[in-house]
Amino acid sequence: MTDYQTSPLHRVRQRAVRAHYDRETVHAILDEALVAHVAFVAEGGPVSMPMFHARDGESVLVHGSRTSRFMRVLSAGVPLCLTVTLVDGLVLARSAFHHSMNYRSVMVHGIATSVSDDEKPRAMNLFTERVKAGRSTEARPANAQELKATQVLRIPLVEVAAKVRDGGPSDDEEDMRLAVWAGVIPVEQRLGEPVPWDAVSPA
Amino acid sequence: MTDYQTSPLHRVRQRAVRAHYDRETVHAILDEALVAHVAFVAEGGPVSMPMFHARDGESVLVHGSRTSRFMRVLSAGVPLCLTVTLVDGLVLARSAFHHSMNYRSVMVHGIATSVSDDEKPRAMNLFTERVKAGRSTEARPANAQELKATQVLRIPLVEVAAKVRDGGPSDDEEDMRLAVWAGVIPVEQRLGEPVPWDAVSPA
Repeated sequence: MTDYQTSPLHRVRQRAVRAHYDRETVHAILDEALVAHVAFVAEGGPVSMPMFHARDGESVLVHGSRTSRFMRVLSAGVPLCLTVTLVDGLVLARSAFHHSMNYRSVMVHGIATSVSDDEKPRAMNLFTERVKAGRSTEARPANAQELKATQVLRIPLVEVAAKVRDGGPSDDEEDMRLAVWAGVIPVEQRLGEPVPWDAVSPA
Repeated sequence: MTDYQTSPLHRVRQRAVRAHYDRETVHAILDEALVAHVAFVAEGGPVSMPMFHARDGESVLVHGSRTSRFMRVLSAGVPLCLTVTLVDGLVLARSAFHHSMNYRSVMVHGIATSVSDDEKPRAMNLFTERVKAGRSTEARPANAQELKATQVLRIPLVEVAAKVRDGGPSDDEEDMRLAVWAGVIPVEQRLGEPVPWDAVSPA
């Protein structure tokens, strides 16, 4: 697979040594993240909207209620930026200045297009499968009314960049002998034991 | 403490029942989140930039290299939106449509102002303390050159809204008897065992 041919405008400029453009790295980060932040300009200025996303090959899908403000704005074809960020560790250096964070992030610039009614059932399954593998064959599928109420948007993976920091602190040479603990506190996101919910919906 | 008097333009409209405007809820979410996504408009269109943030009373601070593109744009006083999102659970309903996520998010709209050189040492300590409580008294403090290289921006907590979903799935009444497991898979972020880093900086 060839790398993403991201244009100079959307390539990583700050600390470009941390940039990655290969599909494997980008896909893995998108597939692990449970939330994406989508930036676009609405009537009140720029917005960074948290959204659940699902990757469909070489595009990313987001969805929402057809009546929501942000779906109306995004489906009109405005420029957007979808970012996912996984925090992997807190990096403690001997100097305050070199404290940092280990992370993996992906930024996608583009314009979303609406997923057609014909494609929508399959697209909806991709979201359900992200919640739990196999789940789309267990739960009652969306009916016509539910499909109609939902808007699914597709953002192509063309203008894409990943940025990754890992490893330990990068202290200055003259600080290496300071009697200060230095290292990494790992940060991990994990799933807990499933909690059944047998109650009827609260009134 | 009075609630935030967020203007109608920036109040939660979609599922407004999940909105919170009290300072305690907003502060707790901001203080727990390890990453914020800041939306603003740059030369290439809207950007959603992951940034480390620290709350300073009734404002949020972000920082970066003075030479970075996004710091140059943000310090010029453009409208921005800072969002933090904590994922608390995957919500599995009996119907695919009602699958959801438990989360706590805060959205701040505003314009950033630069923190003055006099204020900067204290502001920098707030970031270091977020990495680990007490850390600002352990690590070597930033020197004049490091302070100069760092830009700290302050965003006031005025146009603020929190949005919280918790609890189980909200299935339709007619789906309640379906033989499909329903409940919540908790998602938690936790810190691991600190890993010391005694190696000298890699070449």
